[in-house]
Amino acid sequence: MTELLDSLRAEARAAPESGIVEVVTFGRDHPDLVPLWVGEGDLPTPDFIKRAAEASLARGETFYTYQRGIPPLREALAAYTHAQFGKDWGAERHFVTGSGMQAIQIAIDLVAGAGDEIVYPAPAWPNFAAAAEIGGARAVAVPLDFAEDGWRLDPERLLAAVTPRTRAIYLNSPSNPTGFVADRDTLAALLEAARARGMWIIADEVYSRFVYDGTARAPSFVDVAEPDDRVLYVNTFSKNWAMTGWRVGWLSAPPELAQAVENLIQYSTSGVAEFLQHAALAALRDGEPFLAEQQARAARGLAIVRAALDSDARFRYAAPSGAFYAFFRVDGHPDCRALAKRLVSEAGVGLAPGSAFGAAGAGFLRLCFARGEADLTRAAERLSRWIRVDGLV
Amino acid sequence: MTELLDSLRAEARAAPESGIVEVVTFGRDHPDLVPLWVGEGDLPTPDFIKRAAEASLARGETFYTYQRGIPPLREALAAYTHAQFGKDWGAERHFVTGSGMQAIQIAIDLVAGAGDEIVYPAPAWPNFAAAAEIGGARAVAVPLDFAEDGWRLDPERLLAAVTPRTRAIYLNSPSNPTGFVADRDTLAALLEAARARGMWIIADEVYSRFVYDGTARAPSFVDVAEPDDRVLYVNTFSKNWAMTGWRVGWLSAPPELAQAVENLIQYSTSGVAEFLQHAALAALRDGEPFLAEQQARAARGLAIVRAALDSDARFRYAAPSGAFYAFFRVDGHPDCRALAKRLVSEAGVGLAPGSAFGAAGAGFLRLCFARGEADLTRAAERLSRWIRVDGLV
Repeated sequence: MTELLDSLRAEARAAPESGIVEVVTFGRDHPDLVPLWVGEGDLPTPDFIKRAAEASLARGETFYTYQRGIPPLREALAAYTHAQFGKDWGAERHFVTGSGMQAIQIAIDLVAGAGDEIVYPAPAWPNFAAAAEIGGARAVAVPLDFAEDGWRLDPERLLAAVTPRTRAIYLNSPSNPTGFVADRDTLAALLEAARARGMWIIADEVYSRFVYDGTARAPSFVDVAEPDDRVLYVNTFSKNWAMTGWRVGWLSAPPELAQAVENLIQYSTSGVAEFLQHAALAALRDGEPFLAEQQARAARGLAIVRAALDSDARFRYAAPSGAFYAFFRVDGHPDCRALAKRLVSEAGVGLAPGSAFGAAGAGFLRLCFARGEADLTRAAERLSRWIRVDGLV
Repeated sequence: MTELLDSLRAEARAAPESGIVEVVTFGRDHPDLVPLWVGEGDLPTPDFIKRAAEASLARGETFYTYQRGIPPLREALAAYTHAQFGKDWGAERHFVTGSGMQAIQIAIDLVAGAGDEIVYPAPAWPNFAAAAEIGGARAVAVPLDFAEDGWRLDPERLLAAVTPRTRAIYLNSPSNPTGFVADRDTLAALLEAARARGMWIIADEVYSRFVYDGTARAPSFVDVAEPDDRVLYVNTFSKNWAMTGWRVGWLSAPPELAQAVENLIQYSTSGVAEFLQHAALAALRDGEPFLAEQQARAARGLAIVRAALDSDARFRYAAPSGAFYAFFRVDGHPDCRALAKRLVSEAGVGLAPGSAFGAAGAGFLRLCFARGEADLTRAAERLSRWIRVDGLV
């Protein structure tokens, strides 16, 4: 029967299974587990967003709609961009997609295919590299430097991986899983290099509203770029507004690309349901108070988790500057897949193995702290206790 | 500024704009137009389907869910397959996708990429070929034969286009736009040839429930294939249950491919919103009476349109055996784009130019008759009048 698999396209056959699933499957039936392995919060979507979808359904908005997104949502994305960055770049550059993931797929399809390369810092959320390689491109990982005072990206080292085949740099900042946040100088240096070499930047800024240095948001390529720079911005409604399950995101690009983007939407999913777009519109218009609560909640979650990790010197980690993950390793436990399973069985805490985020993440564990205090306190106590008792090698 | 476009991937730059949009844009502000250019009905989604989505939202089902689709929906797809075809092939072969279009994209990505070819009969809905070519494959059109007693597919002629690079045959039956329906012998012949050459078949059967010969549904590859044959079935909730705007479809494939399909879903859109899946589930479970009304409505629509087309010998067409389009040409009016615009201006009827469906469709117009009698009667009267008055060359 492997004949069937053998007759698939090599790139489809080679696409990797999620490295988190193995541990989730292992822990699925564990009673009383605190699941912190997935990148989503524990709150359902707020009612005002759900009501906007229901109102649209009630209006009978169940037909095909604009491939680029409904005009009021594109206008609201322009207003959001203006509010966040003080730049009035217009609605024509925003395209509604069926998830941030689809925005990434479209960004890749726009700039790189068979024989091309995209460089990116790692550890990284694995889906970008997998999508690039399904499309026939090569995703070239360049390790970030780990130190307990923070992960560091050396732009020179990243650029040293650029070859004549390199079509783009992919940067996820704030980073899932490391919490690394690129500063404005780093963004400017990468943009300058991209300009000089005619490369694109795929800027995955889905966690930009989750930072822990007292600022309102992370530095963005919008801060340093012109509207017609070769930057493709990937974003999503998932993280800010507890809409992971809705599968709505957006891609922002120079408006000159509009028809090309529309075509890639047309020939992949043919747009996003109008009533989902009205929910997204409500999130943008009325969602700042909810987002502020989410941010405060994540900050409290981080404090709880840090207290636990600081309780024993064998926990090694850099405090995240952004996103909502703690990424840590444990002295004496180099095999993170085995460790993740032990923590399920022995501590009742579900974490994602760092190897799921590429070779550069091997040895680490990722903990999502976008959850309520009760759960996180319980998980923190369990981790502290585990390292004192079971974690002695 | 074309520098930006020039720096896109060639396949992305080359993706064609929809050939229907030009006419729709031309006619957008025309008062009192009967729009029959798009492939969707005029009824909103029935309430029982909308209520299922709302109930799921109310339950707070707004989180990430199964990449392959929620288990009850996959079970319901197995039951639907059993009810339609009398074959109990199980739930493991069904995968929920973000539209029939996405099912096509995933099917293509599974079997063909850069350097590969897929052959298909034309005229055809253009999105398949566009998606294949964005992925780097070549979509090779083989013309159907037009005669007024029906479009004909010669399997030998289709197979003559197969080369060592051909990885798959794509067949949309019933066909958009021609209404052609492949009979069981044709399907068996294509399957046999695919088996002999190790090729895949992408079976786009989204219109299978719309046929006009008194049968309940069109012949399907399920009728002639084994469950582990190299057939990828593409389907959608859009047409049967007035859910075009929802963007939910499904792909059926040998279960051995399950992990590969899951990976392609994961790395493109990462699944379909759970509450949309509950709506789809309601459509499958309780949607047969609504579908029966839709079928009867389309049959009445076809009769109205045929009466108009039969009113003047200059209308040339083959009565469709399936789907819900009339595809006709007009003697003396060989330029279908110009003709479509004239019919907007002079007759107040919006039709799609046949050239939007490839070179094999040039000269034809596509009329969607999945609409209410009042609209179709008005359009029919206008077309009959137009050909008597303005249509004299």
